Amino acid sequence: MSAISYELLQQDETSNARLGRVTTPHGSFDTPAFMPVGTQGTIKGLLPQSVADTGAQIVLGNTYHLLLRPGSELIAKMGGLQDWTGWRGPMLTDSGGFQVFSLGNLNKIDDDGVKFKSHLDGAEFHLTPERSMLVQEQLGADIIMAFDDCPPAAVEKLNPRNVADSPVRSDSARTQTAEPAVMTPAEYAKRVEIANERTLRWLDRCVKAHRASGRWDEQGLFGIVQGGTDLDQRTFCAEQVTQHDLPGFAIGGVAVGEGSDEIRSVVEHTAPLLPSDKPRYLMGVGYERDIVAAVRAGVDMFDCVLPTRNGRNASAFTSTGLIRLKNAKFAEDPRPIEEGCDCVTCTGFSRSYIRHLFQANEMLGGILVSLHNLRHFQRLLLDIRGAIRDNAWSSLAERWPVAFPAGA
Amino acid sequence: MSAISYELLQQDETSNARLGRVTTPHGSFDTPAFMPVGTQGTIKGLLPQSVADTGAQIVLGNTYHLLLRPGSELIAKMGGLQDWTGWRGPMLTDSGGFQVFSLGNLNKIDDDGVKFKSHLDGAEFHLTPERSMLVQEQLGADIIMAFDDCPPAAVEKLNPRNVADSPVRSDSARTQTAEPAVMTPAEYAKRVEIANERTLRWLDRCVKAHRASGRWDEQGLFGIVQGGTDLDQRTFCAEQVTQHDLPGFAIGGVAVGEGSDEIRSVVEHTAPLLPSDKPRYLMGVGYERDIVAAVRAGVDMFDCVLPTRNGRNASAFTSTGLIRLKNAKFAEDPRPIEEGCDCVTCTGFSRSYIRHLFQANEMLGGILVSLHNLRHFQRLLLDIRGAIRDNAWSSLAERWPVAFPAGA
Repeated sequence: MSAISYELLQQDETSNARLGRVTTPHGSFDTPAFMPVGTQGTIKGLLPQSVADTGAQIVLGNTYHLLLRPGSELIAKMGGLQDWTGWRGPMLTDSGGFQVFSLGNLNKIDDDGVKFKSHLDGAEFHLTPERSMLVQEQLGADIIMAFDDCPPAAVEKLNPRNVADSPVRSDSARTQTAEPAVMTPAEYAKRVEIANERTLRWLDRCVKAHRASGRWDEQGLFGIVQGGTDLDQRTFCAEQVTQHDLPGFAIGGVAVGEGSDEIRSVVEHTAPLLPSDKPRYLMGVGYERDIVAAVRAGVDMFDCVLPTRNGRNASAFTSTGLIRLKNAKFAEDPRPIEEGCDCVTCTGFSRSYIRHLFQANEMLGGILVSLHNLRHFQRLLLDIRGAIRDNAWSSLAERWPVAFPAGA
Repeated sequence: MSAISYELLQQDETSNARLGRVTTPHGSFDTPAFMPVGTQGTIKGLLPQSVADTGAQIVLGNTYHLLLRPGSELIAKMGGLQDWTGWRGPMLTDSGGFQVFSLGNLNKIDDDGVKFKSHLDGAEFHLTPERSMLVQEQLGADIIMAFDDCPPAAVEKLNPRNVADSPVRSDSARTQTAEPAVMTPAEYAKRVEIANERTLRWLDRCVKAHRASGRWDEQGLFGIVQGGTDLDQRTFCAEQVTQHDLPGFAIGGVAVGEGSDEIRSVVEHTAPLLPSDKPRYLMGVGYERDIVAAVRAGVDMFDCVLPTRNGRNASAFTSTGLIRLKNAKFAEDPRPIEEGCDCVTCTGFSRSYIRHLFQANEMLGGILVSLHNLRHFQRLLLDIRGAIRDNAWSSLAERWPVAFPAGA
């Protein structure tokens, strides 16, 4: 028996979108779902109860960061990541692979795994498929991810507008510390092919290791489809990954520097290749328009750091786009961030007050905007689920213009 | 009719301690009361509801900081400090005087008032008794404080043990940016005498200005007794200040660098000189032992930044003393900060997790310890009120050893 089960509640009439529910050892969550990201064992600045109050039913933890500090053995000894951090609901951990490549100081990459030095203190680590499984078993999340090789976008293939416009990967230290690779089309094709083959060999080892751990029934392992922007490679990888009888599948290697149109093309191609009786997870996406497009392609789960990262920078999401609360024009604006929003921020605090908090370097500013932004995405997902249930896409588009840009 | 009324509920049988209730236009609070400090219009890192959940019934705002940024006119336009910050209960503002002397770059002090430059950007300000009243009227708190001249402690009078041990003034930028003055006893006596005379002349002007404002019935003005550690000067000042028919009186100029024994001596001398039918407020104090001693001397109100400032530095208050949560010995400690504490931190998070948050520079660490520390002081005050009601001082001493040091 798997740790994770998926119940399909309703199939949309006009798209591949579907309403569902995923059940885990720590409870259920409604899909399509948006997962806030708790990189270092905390969603920055927020009590777990405050996160739950935004409507989040599942959160994500980052294996790489927790492996480095404080270490997964310590967390296991303290009862696992959920008990330790006070998040009582479902949780998912990534494999650590993405950040090893983007944040770590790499020493050696081969088919066995990756040797790297911590970006914090230079300490040496060795991460392999088996070790990623062990670490995630020690962290103890309900859903764990296969250790994969995620190639960067090939930057020369993109036009400048798309690059500037491209979504930020949820755990995108990469967007801060490393540039997308500059490769010829032939070099990119080769890189994607190698990553795909490695991802598949590593998946075999992840499955074997996790089965041997005795925790198969407690933690559900999701496989990840790579393939970059090459749709044939996506097809090949999806066929191979879905040979494994896993409780869920993810689309990885997306939002790593490519544009919104390419994200959409990959997702619309790949999502239908994944089993319809299992949850489908699009890793690290993203903006509202990308989420809506992916839901209509059949995706069930999302994660992104944007709500909290933007929140700490005073950028607030609204149904018509981002507003920057440090702007002087908000100094005497008595309105909430968004009229009609039911979050703790919008029901209690003005733009004027929030701007003051940022001007005065008060951490409550970042906290209030993070809470609003998290609720913004939960409200969007709530309305998306409503649109599927009631076939009400046109009223969704009216309420969320930001998610339906002209021409999309 | 005054904006503030005091109801004496019970007089302790064994000391001057008393149980009471203060009623303001924004509701009542039980006394003895402890007020958390919200310097820049926020109790750092905490939602107002979280502060209320610790048991705080009244909070303090700092006039100096808000005058500089964003300015009191703006706050008045936005509906006043309570509406703007989302704190719905009673609030008190200080006069700005203490921080002008400790933080501002002084240009000129005379009997008219103080000219100074902002420590933030060098902007010039002029604060006088009339202007302090106007600013506090614009902020709109229920209790406002007279503009006074608060002399520093004379450091050479103290022995080193007491200096190291001395409590931190609640708004004690002074302890960070300025040293206590080094003066001969004669110089100190002169300084205290001048401050007292100035404080009394300024009080006359504050009373006149506040009466003329038309807000006498909406905001209660408290007078402040200065006099340093000179008990005769305290007597003289108390006699003069209490000539005014004000709804409450404060003991100022305490915890400015002198030792715990001197604080106690001043408070035990001065509190009984203040009218028993009005609340008595000891400004900027302090540690648990100082609060208990002051309550027994007849003090009703306290404020201090210690819970939140220490909280952000990982210092947690417990009934037996401070613990430093960054200490490596807590890395695998599964216990809460304090067994039996009912705060949100102690009921949900371990010392191990909180230590990790500080190690990882996560702001949730400071938030969790601030919440615990605020609840610590509210629990102490709750137990103090219980001790007065039930004449149960010995059981209070058993539960709070930190507040009853040996020999005190």
